[in-house]
Amino acid sequence: MSLVDRSVRDLLAAFSSSDPTPGGGSAAALASAVGASLLMMVASLPKTRSGSNEDRALLAEAAELLVRLRRQLADAVDADTIAYDQVVAAYRLPKGTDEEKRARKSAIQRALRSATDVPLGVMRLSALALKRADIVGAHGHPGASSDVGVAAALLHAGMRGARLNVEANVGSIDDEAYKEAVGSEIAALDQVVTKVST
Amino acid sequence: MSLVDRSVRDLLAAFSSSDPTPGGGSAAALASAVGASLLMMVASLPKTRSGSNEDRALLAEAAELLVRLRRQLADAVDADTIAYDQVVAAYRLPKGTDEEKRARKSAIQRALRSATDVPLGVMRLSALALKRADIVGAHGHPGASSDVGVAAALLHAGMRGARLNVEANVGSIDDEAYKEAVGSEIAALDQVVTKVST
Repeated sequence: MSLVDRSVRDLLAAFSSSDPTPGGGSAAALASAVGASLLMMVASLPKTRSGSNEDRALLAEAAELLVRLRRQLADAVDADTIAYDQVVAAYRLPKGTDEEKRARKSAIQRALRSATDVPLGVMRLSALALKRADIVGAHGHPGASSDVGVAAALLHAGMRGARLNVEANVGSIDDEAYKEAVGSEIAALDQVVTKVST
Repeated sequence: MSLVDRSVRDLLAAFSSSDPTPGGGSAAALASAVGASLLMMVASLPKTRSGSNEDRALLAEAAELLVRLRRQLADAVDADTIAYDQVVAAYRLPKGTDEEKRARKSAIQRALRSATDVPLGVMRLSALALKRADIVGAHGHPGASSDVGVAAALLHAGMRGARLNVEANVGSIDDEAYKEAVGSEIAALDQVVTKVST
């Protein structure tokens, strides 16, 4: 069963168990999905900061993006676990003959790339949601400002958690051009995020 | 139905809806519950940093505490929503007569105190879990260090989120002695947390 279709209680038990998945990558995606959800909530409140049409239009635009980000982040909760399970499976492939060794190495490299791409995607989605935290904070109902603050804290944690997972996997990848591209994107995303004040 | 008995997908939808609960307080408790769960996972792995008996004993001790913290944090996901619903209900009480006004004011004060105590409890539990993040990081399997890092990021976010909720509610409480006690405890918990390096 998909992780997001399980009860919260079951998912907590699954994170706690000594099985390698679900692990930190799925947890980071979940934190960001909750953050995006809280921002959606504030963007959907009938009250806005000033009650102006500008508030309403900017919040509606943010909510439309956030509903998509929330769905993609929820998908990443499962995608990260699937990707990591494939890394574990690839390492367990037979390595008796030279041909087996080559096939195993190539399967490991493919699996590591997915296990890097998924948390890198979580970083990207979290950065997009964080940019909206500023808009929702500036134009949303001031009574919900603590919800915006919690959302930003969760998105920052999701971002950091996803980065730790990118770094844990990209180190074992052989393709130098890919590694460099990942490094540049992480640096660019970090810049976006440190600009977000909320 | 209790929030933690609902599916993750349903809970995300509930956070996203424009209903005031579940809100940031429950989200903060959830983040910390996931953080405590990941630490439990690393503490329960068959491999430890050095394979020594000391590692094993310290990790077993940490796991025993973390299982309790996880349960209490999961309970707080629901408790925060119940407490905040009571605040909303108290503000909606009739205020036609002087007696009604007095009864309403006292109900609001009682409800605000619960809505402060619950996230303060989440701060306390998160701080206890964060202290174990250092132990689990120092003695747990190095291959799981990214999970420890994600756990710490989530516990920090849960701590910060809970603090925003304490501050949002304690401001409207009349009892100055209580307010002061809350302020001192927040400062003490902050000191604990800034010491945690993970």
